[in-house]
Amino acid sequence: MQKQVEYPEAIKTKYPEQVVIAIARDKNGKANPVTLGWTMIVSGDPPMMAIAVAKKHYSIEAITRSKCFTIAFPSVEMADAALFFGSRSGREVDKFAEFECATEPARDIDSVLLTDAVANFECTLQSQTGAGDHFVFIGKVVCSHTSTEPKKRLYTIGPGHKLGPAS
Amino acid sequence: MQKQVEYPEAIKTKYPEQVVIAIARDKNGKANPVTLGWTMIVSGDPPMMAIAVAKKHYSIEAITRSKCFTIAFPSVEMADAALFFGSRSGREVDKFAEFECATEPARDIDSVLLTDAVANFECTLQSQTGAGDHFVFIGKVVCSHTSTEPKKRLYTIGPGHKLGPAS
Repeated sequence: MQKQVEYPEAIKTKYPEQVVIAIARDKNGKANPVTLGWTMIVSGDPPMMAIAVAKKHYSIEAITRSKCFTIAFPSVEMADAALFFGSRSGREVDKFAEFECATEPARDIDSVLLTDAVANFECTLQSQTGAGDHFVFIGKVVCSHTSTEPKKRLYTIGPGHKLGPAS
Repeated sequence: MQKQVEYPEAIKTKYPEQVVIAIARDKNGKANPVTLGWTMIVSGDPPMMAIAVAKKHYSIEAITRSKCFTIAFPSVEMADAALFFGSRSGREVDKFAEFECATEPARDIDSVLLTDAVANFECTLQSQTGAGDHFVFIGKVVCSHTSTEPKKRLYTIGPGHKLGPAS
């Protein structure tokens, strides 16, 4: 049976929720990573993926300017990096300088990949739609990469940014 | 270390992936459920959610016509229903007539809720964006419901529509 509840109560049933780290270069060329839980695939052919980014986030400017971004699936070992990239702003800090996290150049876009991620997807910006307090960016996947070692994907497994493996 | 691979290979790292059942009424008033893995929250205030639906799906017509839809989080007990609703077309069958699945009326939109789901979100259509072979529908959540009994959410846990709990 269903009972009506407030949205914040109902949405607590969403866990585990996938986590990605999106990366785009700002106007100074600085690669800026941001941790996001609101992401999905949107097309199979061609492959396309979407991310929702808070309108106040520094990443908005970087993505709209560079018109491309990386979507990385962080591994469970990257929980601290995901927390750091999700809690600090690129307006104030150079996140990759402050938190050690191996990167390597992307192949087809002007961005970087996360060396220790489960997978990285290079995306070119296709569209941007306002939705409440976020922008939805849709990107076409132009190049894909996976880890050479087996790794488990990181999820948010409970409220308060509790991160871990899904199982 | 990362190695470049084809997209179908890289995207295999996505599991577990959340599953929702979206429901909208067609022009004859028939409530038509479709199972989707491509969904995300897109706004916190106001709460908004997005779904990506294949352009060829019967649900496209129902959602664009009725301008509202339910997003249900199926429970693990609903795996067979999720498979049925995801593999048949509302053009050919009345899915709720063919597969027993308890429903109840929505409160604020002209749709139904899934009685045995973990949660149900009533959404009014805010925008529609084409993205490759899918349309992305963004809905504003106008009413939320959860199960009165504790239930586990259903996920796709591997290729070939392998469904189960995330952990």
